[in-house]
Amino acid sequence: MSKDNFQEIKEIGFTSLIKKLSSYHGSERDEIIKGIGDDTAIYKNKQGTVSCATSEIFLEGVHFDVTYTPLHHLGYKLVTSAVSDIYAMNAEPVQLLVNIAIPNKYSVQMIEQLYKGIDSAAKDYHVQVSGGDTTASHQILSVSVTALGAAQEKELVFRNTAKDSDIICVTGDLGSALAGLRILMREKKHWQEHETESFQPDIVDYEYVVKRQLLPVARKDFTEAILQSGIKPSAMIDLTQGLMADLKSVAESSGLGTELYSPAIPISLDTRKVADEMKEDVDKYVFYGGEDYEMLFTMEEAMIEKFRETFDDFAVIGKMTNQYKALKINTGEGETIKIDLNES
Amino acid sequence: MSKDNFQEIKEIGFTSLIKKLSSYHGSERDEIIKGIGDDTAIYKNKQGTVSCATSEIFLEGVHFDVTYTPLHHLGYKLVTSAVSDIYAMNAEPVQLLVNIAIPNKYSVQMIEQLYKGIDSAAKDYHVQVSGGDTTASHQILSVSVTALGAAQEKELVFRNTAKDSDIICVTGDLGSALAGLRILMREKKHWQEHETESFQPDIVDYEYVVKRQLLPVARKDFTEAILQSGIKPSAMIDLTQGLMADLKSVAESSGLGTELYSPAIPISLDTRKVADEMKEDVDKYVFYGGEDYEMLFTMEEAMIEKFRETFDDFAVIGKMTNQYKALKINTGEGETIKIDLNES
Repeated sequence: MSKDNFQEIKEIGFTSLIKKLSSYHGSERDEIIKGIGDDTAIYKNKQGTVSCATSEIFLEGVHFDVTYTPLHHLGYKLVTSAVSDIYAMNAEPVQLLVNIAIPNKYSVQMIEQLYKGIDSAAKDYHVQVSGGDTTASHQILSVSVTALGAAQEKELVFRNTAKDSDIICVTGDLGSALAGLRILMREKKHWQEHETESFQPDIVDYEYVVKRQLLPVARKDFTEAILQSGIKPSAMIDLTQGLMADLKSVAESSGLGTELYSPAIPISLDTRKVADEMKEDVDKYVFYGGEDYEMLFTMEEAMIEKFRETFDDFAVIGKMTNQYKALKINTGEGETIKIDLNES
Repeated sequence: MSKDNFQEIKEIGFTSLIKKLSSYHGSERDEIIKGIGDDTAIYKNKQGTVSCATSEIFLEGVHFDVTYTPLHHLGYKLVTSAVSDIYAMNAEPVQLLVNIAIPNKYSVQMIEQLYKGIDSAAKDYHVQVSGGDTTASHQILSVSVTALGAAQEKELVFRNTAKDSDIICVTGDLGSALAGLRILMREKKHWQEHETESFQPDIVDYEYVVKRQLLPVARKDFTEAILQSGIKPSAMIDLTQGLMADLKSVAESSGLGTELYSPAIPISLDTRKVADEMKEDVDKYVFYGGEDYEMLFTMEEAMIEKFRETFDDFAVIGKMTNQYKALKINTGEGETIKIDLNES
């Protein structure tokens, strides 16, 4: 980045910066009768609806590495991460509050890049940025995003309502976000060891997995399919911690166990290729890698084929059992791994 | 703090920590049909209500100094700061989402202290902690609090609705939070210069101002008085940035100017005493010191005396004028200071 493009925030002041950033407000929503500019945002509820609220915090060095994360991608991902939780309730995201603490090393242009990403995602998900807090920070960039949404109460899908014998399904493919991270970290290491002047990761052959890491997309299409098909999952969670942790959350809260058939778990060829190159077990990516932003849902077996007529980007990977806290994995090679959830 | 009381978070793990912290959830509210434990919190709206949302971020070293801030006080203040914005819309806070990023130097006990403060405030303001995100951090503690509230739409009081000739009032007294900060900073400096073993600030004589800095209380009582009296301010804002900045926000957004009569601004004797000791102008504390969490409101002159029958902890400090962006301060000594808001 040339020096012409590095304008220190103190040159324009925080008040001007906040004014500048307030133009990146995503979609304008009719329900929001007061957005940025007062003490709070005001949202007008439609009759019979409930509101959803979720919030996440992202810290430089913990949740993102600015060496290989373009700031507009980061902005997009922050929004994806927040709205994904709303979709996971089968609700519609409506507004976002963005809190940001900015250290001196970030220029006005860099923060605008971040907000361009937020704005772009907010438009894709049809949500309005309706408020937040902008402040100075020492050393690291810290961003916190709150998403608020709405739903008809009867349409909500919880995590703790899976039923015994329900089929477990996941959308898309799993483990690709971690595969992308592995590639980016390898490129960073190469760059550090060779001290080349600028960081230009060689990611042409890994575009799919790198995009899944840097620019993940929340499964808005899945909640739309639920509405269109009229078929509601019995339980649902978005896959952000990794299949194991998220499935455990569904099983534990529903008071059930699970049986997975691991060969059925959808894994892209690109993800397998990365695991091979890294000499790692691709199952590790799938079971413990997070940030895929796919949906895990449970459904009565009888509904599956009917649902597939509307939406088919999902795979059946197992079923719920009545054995509380027992998680069995059938590897398809005559082997069954038992995991006691009390100990994991 | 003894070593017995310093349990590293990694000893119990983040999952256990989150479970432990989830017991500090403030008041249980009937409207919240889903609190901590799913993808989002779910709030059931009463008919005819609107929702309010506000969010703030606090960073160690920027917004608080752990040298002299007891962590349970910090927790209380975070909540005060968030709900104060809801009260400033004349709405009722209902739920809180707390995001926290914790560095290694904090023990389980320290984080519990923080949550005890959050819990205690949440009970005082009758709000439920319904969700949030808990994560690791490098170096500094970063906390972000989102408050959600509800109001009848017709009861809302905005910032941009002050009318020409309305009287400007403030609750309580101003500048005391900054006076408290001055004392704490002086004590810290003394401690650093004398390298005494533990930091025991000598604040006995400054209890009032120090408490105003460390443990501020949001003016729930003021919104209750509005309800009880049936008299609604024309505009309202909570004083967090300092009188000048917050009044400017009301004036600008309402397209008006203001005239202040500075001798009428309520200042406690304790605040004056601190300013004298520091050889500083007490007006500086009042005009530019923030974090008082008092309410600034405007009201038709004819309503003031009637309103005072219900609530009298406020002072009239000036009036709105039709001179857009002109802010005049009458010092009571035959002097009038004119501030052009375009330049400030």
